[in-house]
Amino acid sequence: MGIGLENELEKLLRGARQAARTLARSRSAEKNRALRLLADALRDNADEILAANRNDYEGAAMRGRSDAFLDRLKLDLARVEKIAVSVEQIEALPDPVSEVIAGWRRPNGLEITQVRVPIGVIAVIYESRPNVTIEAACLGFKAGNAVVLRGGSDALQTNRVLAGLVARSLAGAGLPPQAAVFVDQGDHDAIQVLKRRTDLLDLIVPRGGGELKRALDGSAVPVLPHFEGICHVYVDRAADLQMGQEICVNAKCSRPGVCNAMENLLVHSEVAPRFLGPLAKQLTTRGVEIRGCERTCRLLPEAVAAVDQDWDTEYLDLILAVKVVDDLEEALAFIARHGSGLADAIVTSDLVAARRFTEEVDSATVYVNASTRFTDGFEFGFGAETGISTNRLHARGPMGLRELTTYKYVIFGDGQVRE
Amino acid sequence: MGIGLENELEKLLRGARQAARTLARSRSAEKNRALRLLADALRDNADEILAANRNDYEGAAMRGRSDAFLDRLKLDLARVEKIAVSVEQIEALPDPVSEVIAGWRRPNGLEITQVRVPIGVIAVIYESRPNVTIEAACLGFKAGNAVVLRGGSDALQTNRVLAGLVARSLAGAGLPPQAAVFVDQGDHDAIQVLKRRTDLLDLIVPRGGGELKRALDGSAVPVLPHFEGICHVYVDRAADLQMGQEICVNAKCSRPGVCNAMENLLVHSEVAPRFLGPLAKQLTTRGVEIRGCERTCRLLPEAVAAVDQDWDTEYLDLILAVKVVDDLEEALAFIARHGSGLADAIVTSDLVAARRFTEEVDSATVYVNASTRFTDGFEFGFGAETGISTNRLHARGPMGLRELTTYKYVIFGDGQVRE
Repeated sequence: MGIGLENELEKLLRGARQAARTLARSRSAEKNRALRLLADALRDNADEILAANRNDYEGAAMRGRSDAFLDRLKLDLARVEKIAVSVEQIEALPDPVSEVIAGWRRPNGLEITQVRVPIGVIAVIYESRPNVTIEAACLGFKAGNAVVLRGGSDALQTNRVLAGLVARSLAGAGLPPQAAVFVDQGDHDAIQVLKRRTDLLDLIVPRGGGELKRALDGSAVPVLPHFEGICHVYVDRAADLQMGQEICVNAKCSRPGVCNAMENLLVHSEVAPRFLGPLAKQLTTRGVEIRGCERTCRLLPEAVAAVDQDWDTEYLDLILAVKVVDDLEEALAFIARHGSGLADAIVTSDLVAARRFTEEVDSATVYVNASTRFTDGFEFGFGAETGISTNRLHARGPMGLRELTTYKYVIFGDGQVRE
Repeated sequence: MGIGLENELEKLLRGARQAARTLARSRSAEKNRALRLLADALRDNADEILAANRNDYEGAAMRGRSDAFLDRLKLDLARVEKIAVSVEQIEALPDPVSEVIAGWRRPNGLEITQVRVPIGVIAVIYESRPNVTIEAACLGFKAGNAVVLRGGSDALQTNRVLAGLVARSLAGAGLPPQAAVFVDQGDHDAIQVLKRRTDLLDLIVPRGGGELKRALDGSAVPVLPHFEGICHVYVDRAADLQMGQEICVNAKCSRPGVCNAMENLLVHSEVAPRFLGPLAKQLTTRGVEIRGCERTCRLLPEAVAAVDQDWDTEYLDLILAVKVVDDLEEALAFIARHGSGLADAIVTSDLVAARRFTEEVDSATVYVNASTRFTDGFEFGFGAETGISTNRLHARGPMGLRELTTYKYVIFGDGQVRE
């Protein structure tokens, strides 16, 4: 990689580090004013945003990107409005900085408070989704951090316009524009630089698939990944089968290309004969291909035989792997082995089964009688999300503002010394 | 490194992973029973422990270890009793597993609860301090984790006896003894294996210095380090000077070899002429060497001139670097530049200065009118500690039971699907 890129990034990161110090001490009123200005600027500059986006879109289409990809890239007036509304929602959220998490007094009179503080400088690496540029920037600086944004190259022109609006809004509120900077070159070369700079960067939040994961291997900077989801729905013997159908159709079909979509369906053998036929009808109408275990294939002539690899594949597509299991025990063992620990659901009216499922499934989000598709910052009520952590540490599952903070202990005494 | 070690460790880790599943679901009563049995076993087997420790001690002395090192290694009847009491204290602590951190109901009726769960398998790498073997094991399994212990080789025989007692106590309570396993070979070779096994290990907690830090460079398993502390005391213009003296003597002299001891002292120029003379007298009586800035050396004939490197050195010894500063601003800038972000204190009666110091100093623990030496799990009221995190993420500062857990979201619905 060029020394030019390295120098460029270093300059950018130094600016962000400096800005982070100012942001950490800024008032909620200032940060909210920047958000207010940005919401207005998005609406006022919709034409410019859409023109840049048309160029990006045409380029990506010429490069043969998939329909799902192009759909995520594309903006129209309604989508710009939706982004502006999300900025207003972030403005309305309480400021997490300085929240007292806990506090107590020790026998020796020391008063200890655990206080929420920003993390510092956070890099967000993401796909060609222009809305993420705005949401990641806004959540990041509302939580008092400086944010370094590295979006997919197919959205470059759109992102440049958006980044300009963010910078202007920060400056308009008297905050340093370096608090949200956009890296517009270098692709994975940039990642190789970012992941080494523990002096200038406190956290990397990557949103993406296997290639991004490999690019971040051995990162010296801590990584809070948003990687794959192999999500399960288990339809128990005691399930309301009508409810089971609705949940399965929703979990598979409402948006098959996202991480919280169902990839593997497990059905209790006692209900499989009644459940699978009607479900398959609904799924195939929606274009879903079913890959089944032996028993599933016996019940469903339209199913193709699943191979071992199917149980460990994140299709992100209209494909579903289906397995008939003999009991809850087998379902739990299957999920422990094949699940990715993101989102798994049981459909049951049996309290004992529900309690055992929620206790034993070791996933970020565990559902009883609801679709896995709710694993999402908006749906959790966080207003927006920076990503969904597939990590066990620091943050797990949907990440809102609090997940972009850390804490420190502030201790007041009157001369205490230790024995 | 030998394939033998690699296979040995893999077997150990697989056992721990299996045990972690059982531990995660075990009742508090079972875990507490294991702790009760261990406290008794420590007292009942004190002779055997002390005999093994005498061998370790003699070996370490022959290898020319320092007095401070030998002191940390050495056990006697009183210290064994103290360890047994700490086990009883951990028994008395509330179980963090299944604690509901937060819970709310969404407009669509979904009930979301955020529930504390164990992290999984945790490796603790530490010095030749036998008490850590017991404390890390007990905190780890009380929080529902399996713990892999890798202690310093100078304490090997003591640790083997202690590990045996832990295993017997777990088994006695019906829990898998593989939940607390001791790695008794391989030294840094073992670390090289551990840091790659993301499949079998969820976290590494290293306690130690630069060499250990380098050995863990590029770890694929997340690391929650307990590394160096360059701690400051700033004596403000508005300080109670008598209190300032007591705090400085305590922060430097009460235990100079630990991470929360003061290394740099900053004194406001207005009080320096009155403050430094009497302090220097107290410090030199206690054998402290003072390395001062130019102004300090003018005030203290006994001081030697500090060089640049002194301000960035963790002495862990009876040496103190002293600088006279012109105002709070300069003190804050100095701490931002030279501090390690672990523990820093201000001595002042000025509310504005105290508030500014606690807000702007970005350290895990920030003190007003108290010694930095309180940065410690026991002193915080956590009962015991696994270490003091010098990290910004997941946990910061003293780590107790909660810091050894993560969380998951459990969501109950009645058929909700996403639009």
